[in-house]
Amino acid sequence: MQPPSDPALHPDVAALSFLLGTWRGTGEGQYPTVDPFRYGEEMTFTHVGDPFLAYEQRSWSLEDGAPLHFERGFLRGGEGIELVLAHPLGIVEVSTGTLSGGGGSRVLDLASATMAHTPTGDRVTALRRHLEVEGDAMVYTLDMEMERVPLSPHLRAELRREF
Amino acid sequence: MQPPSDPALHPDVAALSFLLGTWRGTGEGQYPTVDPFRYGEEMTFTHVGDPFLAYEQRSWSLEDGAPLHFERGFLRGGEGIELVLAHPLGIVEVSTGTLSGGGGSRVLDLASATMAHTPTGDRVTALRRHLEVEGDAMVYTLDMEMERVPLSPHLRAELRREF
Repeated sequence: MQPPSDPALHPDVAALSFLLGTWRGTGEGQYPTVDPFRYGEEMTFTHVGDPFLAYEQRSWSLEDGAPLHFERGFLRGGEGIELVLAHPLGIVEVSTGTLSGGGGSRVLDLASATMAHTPTGDRVTALRRHLEVEGDAMVYTLDMEMERVPLSPHLRAELRREF
Repeated sequence: MQPPSDPALHPDVAALSFLLGTWRGTGEGQYPTVDPFRYGEEMTFTHVGDPFLAYEQRSWSLEDGAPLHFERGFLRGGEGIELVLAHPLGIVEVSTGTLSGGGGSRVLDLASATMAHTPTGDRVTALRRHLEVEGDAMVYTLDMEMERVPLSPHLRAELRREF
C-alpha cells in the first residue's frame, strides 16, 4: 500500500510552509581556498503530513553542467526549527534555527550545532545559513568555517519557486 | 544547464554498483520498547558520476499506508565505505563499512562511528546495518542502540530490485 499522496500539513511545520515546492535559480560561490564560481541550483521541500519537511538540493556548474553539490535531509518544526542534513563530501550537519520577518517576507536563520565527518570527509566545522523568502522569490547566503579557515562567506543564490 | 543525464560510474563506487536501482519490498520491525510491526519499503541508490551513491529510503505502515520512516544520504566509496545519513527523527549518522561476499552474493556491513541529534531528536546512540544482495534480491537487518536500550535487533526486510 502506498502512503497517502496528499496528506494535510502537520501543524508543527505550518510556520515552514512558505518553503514548500521546488525552487530553481543561480548562485555565486567564493571561499578563501577556491576561485569564485557560478552555479545552477534546484531545491525541493516536500512534506508527508509529519512534523518535518524533506529537503533535497543539487547544484551544478554553469560552465559544463557537471554536478557540484548535493544536500539531503529534513527540516523539523515544533519547539524550534531543526535541520538534519547529509552532504556527499562526507559530512553530517545538525543545525538549529529561528524564523523572523514580516510584511510578506519570511526569514530563516540556521546555525550548526554539531558537524561530524567520515574518516575521509571534508573538515567543515561550522555552517551558517540565512534564507529569505518573499512570495516565490528566495535569496540565501551560506557561510562556512573549516579547520583552517575562519567562518567566511561561501554561497549566495537567488531562486524562484517553480511549482 | 542540466547535469549530464547518464554519466559514467566513478571507479571509486564500482564496488557498490550492485546497489544501484530502486528496491521495494516488506519488512518486520521489533524493539524492546515497541510492539512488533510490518512495513512496506522503497529504497533508491543513484549516482551522478561522482565517488558516491545518493541513497533515499521511505517506509510505510502495511496497515494504513501511513509514512513510518525516511532516510536520506550518501554512500561514499574509495579508501573505505562511508555512509552519511539524515533521519527525520532528528538524527544524523556517520557509519563506516566493509564489503564481503562471493559467488554472486555481495555483503555490506556498516557500523555507526558518530551519531548526533537535534535538541528534540531521538537518542539513538548506535546503528548496525547488514545488507546482502544476490542479483535482484536484497535482505537487510538493522540493529539499534538507544540511551536506555542496548544494541538490539530492530528491522529486517526483503526487497526486490524493480528497475
